[in-house]
Amino acid sequence: MRFAKFALAGEARWGIVDGPELLVLRGHPLFASAEATGERVALKDVLLLPPTLPTTKIVCIGKNYADHAAEMGGELPPEPLIFLKPSTSLIGDGESIVFPEISERVDFEGELAIVIGEIAKNVSASDALSVVWGYTIANDVTARDIQEKDGQWTRAKGYDTFCPLGPWVETEFEIDGQILETRVDGDTKQHASIDLLIHKVPRIIEHVTQSMTLLPGDVILTGTPAGIGQMVSGDVVEITIEGIGTLTNTVA
Amino acid sequence: MRFAKFALAGEARWGIVDGPELLVLRGHPLFASAEATGERVALKDVLLLPPTLPTTKIVCIGKNYADHAAEMGGELPPEPLIFLKPSTSLIGDGESIVFPEISERVDFEGELAIVIGEIAKNVSASDALSVVWGYTIANDVTARDIQEKDGQWTRAKGYDTFCPLGPWVETEFEIDGQILETRVDGDTKQHASIDLLIHKVPRIIEHVTQSMTLLPGDVILTGTPAGIGQMVSGDVVEITIEGIGTLTNTVA
Repeated sequence: MRFAKFALAGEARWGIVDGPELLVLRGHPLFASAEATGERVALKDVLLLPPTLPTTKIVCIGKNYADHAAEMGGELPPEPLIFLKPSTSLIGDGESIVFPEISERVDFEGELAIVIGEIAKNVSASDALSVVWGYTIANDVTARDIQEKDGQWTRAKGYDTFCPLGPWVETEFEIDGQILETRVDGDTKQHASIDLLIHKVPRIIEHVTQSMTLLPGDVILTGTPAGIGQMVSGDVVEITIEGIGTLTNTVA
Repeated sequence: MRFAKFALAGEARWGIVDGPELLVLRGHPLFASAEATGERVALKDVLLLPPTLPTTKIVCIGKNYADHAAEMGGELPPEPLIFLKPSTSLIGDGESIVFPEISERVDFEGELAIVIGEIAKNVSASDALSVVWGYTIANDVTARDIQEKDGQWTRAKGYDTFCPLGPWVETEFEIDGQILETRVDGDTKQHASIDLLIHKVPRIIEHVTQSMTLLPGDVILTGTPAGIGQMVSGDVVEITIEGIGTLTNTVA
């Protein structure tokens, strides 16, 4: 099932994606009390919001595809390498990425994102999939020159609008054999099997929950494959994962 | 004025500290609609909570005292160096710090924390103090061995319980000439004037808001002076900043 968050009459709402329409819900689909209102709206008539909660933390895994680690130089991290993006960096499908004046190179990084459904601490890899609510798509936008300058990646990856997320959460996604593809103005820049993740989803959840508690609605960005590159003003960036959908954002 | 957050009959509430008592408020003191309920409770009878909101992000500044940067080795960052701690790392005054089994060295780092009162983006240093609600005290607890291993600092500083914060927010704090002191089981480990901050509060706010929007309730940890060191099970760690109070936590 696909759950989308969207703006309706100035309020944030959740709905179930049903073809070109949304079945509007009352409450969050993870709440026991959520139910259909009976109202339907056309997907094309709403602004999609990042499918998150006010408490959502955005945990990211660095260098998790060998070919991307190679293009970035340096060694492969022996364990999943964790960093955070602030929730103020979130934007939804269709919104614009805004570059900071200070940076001369801002890159796209298409990624599979895990959305957590339960409070999770010290979860073993074998139990990890039971705490996953679903999956969505993220662009781990990065000011590459700032990343190199700071050493710590937070500022370079934490600017407002640097975490496009969506278009919705797919709860029935089967990861095996799926392809992630990033296109800029229609040209394919990243095209990789998600099977190539060095640390797979269960191991990532095990590793992250050994350090921090994950809450319902928290998101983990799993890393980007090779092919990352620069965006410029006016670019349309589309990230497609078969079985989830396409996240589209324009560069302001 | 001192505003504390605390648990009362199983609910999180805010109150004004009045000597040994709390004047209980309805709502958050930053809300226009907040008002006194008339109820008073003894400070000693309540569990203090970290003075944050569900949306609070915790922005930290690294190596912001020259003597601490020297004890850690490496160069001084030319600009404030930003990293984040997850909100799941927060604990209040009086709560216990829990070590992860994986680490063999967990350190205290006493710090002045800024609490933001307004939505703030691209704020100049000259206007920066107008977005400050008040100040509190933080312990930027760090698994030193994990910090060295990962390179990125997020995991080492992001474990659950690794951000003691409190005991309350002081809105009339005057920073000039104030002393930060950290004691472990009564022995003074850190004792420094906050005047020694390399990047001062206005410059920190200018720098952070050039990258990310700060929201009411967000917290910035300003960095730690020299004297950081290891904690062991049973240690009582007290961080005092004159004019604010003392943050006390025990190591589990």
